[in-house]
Amino acid sequence: MRLSTLRDGSRDGRLAVVRHDGVRLAAATGIAPTLQAALDDWPRCEPRLRALAADLDSGALAGEPVVLDAFCSPLPRAYEWVDGSAFLNHVRLVRKARGADLPPKLEVDPLVYQGGSGVLCGPQDPMPLVDEGFGLDFEGEVCVILSDVPQGTRAADAARHVRLLLLANDVTLRNLVPEELAKGFGFFQSKPATAFSPFAATPDELGPAWKEGRVHLRLRVVYNGALVGDCDAGPEMHFSFFELVEHIARTRSYTAGTILGSGTVSNADRARGVSCLAERRTIEILDAGPGGKPRTPFMKRGDRVEIDMLDTRGRSIFGRIAQEVV
Amino acid sequence: MRLSTLRDGSRDGRLAVVRHDGVRLAAATGIAPTLQAALDDWPRCEPRLRALAADLDSGALAGEPVVLDAFCSPLPRAYEWVDGSAFLNHVRLVRKARGADLPPKLEVDPLVYQGGSGVLCGPQDPMPLVDEGFGLDFEGEVCVILSDVPQGTRAADAARHVRLLLLANDVTLRNLVPEELAKGFGFFQSKPATAFSPFAATPDELGPAWKEGRVHLRLRVVYNGALVGDCDAGPEMHFSFFELVEHIARTRSYTAGTILGSGTVSNADRARGVSCLAERRTIEILDAGPGGKPRTPFMKRGDRVEIDMLDTRGRSIFGRIAQEVV
Repeated sequence: MRLSTLRDGSRDGRLAVVRHDGVRLAAATGIAPTLQAALDDWPRCEPRLRALAADLDSGALAGEPVVLDAFCSPLPRAYEWVDGSAFLNHVRLVRKARGADLPPKLEVDPLVYQGGSGVLCGPQDPMPLVDEGFGLDFEGEVCVILSDVPQGTRAADAARHVRLLLLANDVTLRNLVPEELAKGFGFFQSKPATAFSPFAATPDELGPAWKEGRVHLRLRVVYNGALVGDCDAGPEMHFSFFELVEHIARTRSYTAGTILGSGTVSNADRARGVSCLAERRTIEILDAGPGGKPRTPFMKRGDRVEIDMLDTRGRSIFGRIAQEVV
Repeated sequence: MRLSTLRDGSRDGRLAVVRHDGVRLAAATGIAPTLQAALDDWPRCEPRLRALAADLDSGALAGEPVVLDAFCSPLPRAYEWVDGSAFLNHVRLVRKARGADLPPKLEVDPLVYQGGSGVLCGPQDPMPLVDEGFGLDFEGEVCVILSDVPQGTRAADAARHVRLLLLANDVTLRNLVPEELAKGFGFFQSKPATAFSPFAATPDELGPAWKEGRVHLRLRVVYNGALVGDCDAGPEMHFSFFELVEHIARTRSYTAGTILGSGTVSNADRARGVSCLAERRTIEILDAGPGGKPRTPFMKRGDRVEIDMLDTRGRSIFGRIAQEVV
């Protein structure tokens, strides 16, 4: 089952179920007005939403056509947005780029940061260029939306807390990062609003590609019309979503609707490309040798990034994030 | 006007207006079911809530008695909890305690961190002692609840975005802080759920004590029955709430209901005491001379902290946070 949120002028939009082929949808507001309301009352809502999806898939219900710019983020505002950095190749590259040390426990202690969650962008919302000097970058990620998670939840028990999966563009202002992290309190101004894919899918939509808390599919990133990244989101995710859940639940609990991100999807094999510009710039610096400079600039007005993920049959699971810098 | 949220088994509780003397209240669910709903539609709700409060204050409406353990946090879950560290005396003391450098731009660039906001504690909720080795500490703070704040809002324009004020106990696990901050991504496991005062008050409730984005009143902190802190929350708040709003809105917008904290209230004059144990421990170390150790342990089972603020006539503005370690 795939859920989406339609822009309707309200703060939280209205819930809709998307047909299997992604071209039609049906309003689900008779079951729950918003995705948050459905997550708040999932045991009651899930079977009804699935029945609606089945009617749509079978043709018993015609639904209405999908209009791509009608979608907000599945959760236009969320109670928490917690982002991991579970692809260690990404951590190693971006820290090298800014001359920062690697955390000593990198391989055993997950990196996560608390992101702003009160204003989240839809899949086609513009990326505002507040200041060209800030170094605007995209980051393609896979995310899960959680149920209530009690403090102390262990990785072995985390699978049942994963309600939905979706994609994110975790927008980053690279040139604000070094000074901000040096202050010791983590990212803040360097992380403007994150954008999400139009559809949030239940784990069964991924079939065997959802395995042990990882998504074994490729994340396609197209930048200004060229495929720049086709990284596998599975094997190199060093900490699975289940391990990330255990990490974040060590000292507190979470409410249903918390979004948890993988961090930028990144593969050691350079042939796979990149899911953010910072990695490409680092590779350019390394390849240029001592004193090398990056060739790729950060994003500028009119640049366009698209982030998508196809299943083994070529179907876009989450719909496409397609944002333009304004 | 003072608003509160009554525990009723639902996720967001039910909204109530508190009488001027703080001993009776009236359900406000006929106006808005929850505080978040009121904040989402404030121009419509505010005059109606004020009319209800006036009826309660005049005796036209009897209301029901206040029962202290009936309150949740005014927002049992919030879309964002952003905490500043605007009392530089606190920053200087706690960084000295853990041997950390002061940020070079401490006096011109505010420190803020993004806190977890999906599960917030009520004023009498227990403080769970997950592990005695974590170094459980309280932090007494003043907070504001914001309206929608557009990206780019300036300090000079921030006053109108402050809807309500309240107090917080920003619980901290001190012994998890150094290693977590060294990773570079800010606080996470070291910040369990924050607790809030029972009442959230509109700025006019503070009279002249609310001035230029600061609360010129003392924050009373009682620890195991003894007054340990009576710090003025006004003059030494280096960055006002208005300046903090400008800082956090530099690169993104906020939804109504965002909670913004001052950081631990702290005065340079030692006679004022402390609003957290970490400061007291640092002072003990400094006073003991080279190789000195703190005498005060972190919180243990059965310890009790109370945080309150009285107006110039001795009335508790926000009601009392009173938590016990379990």
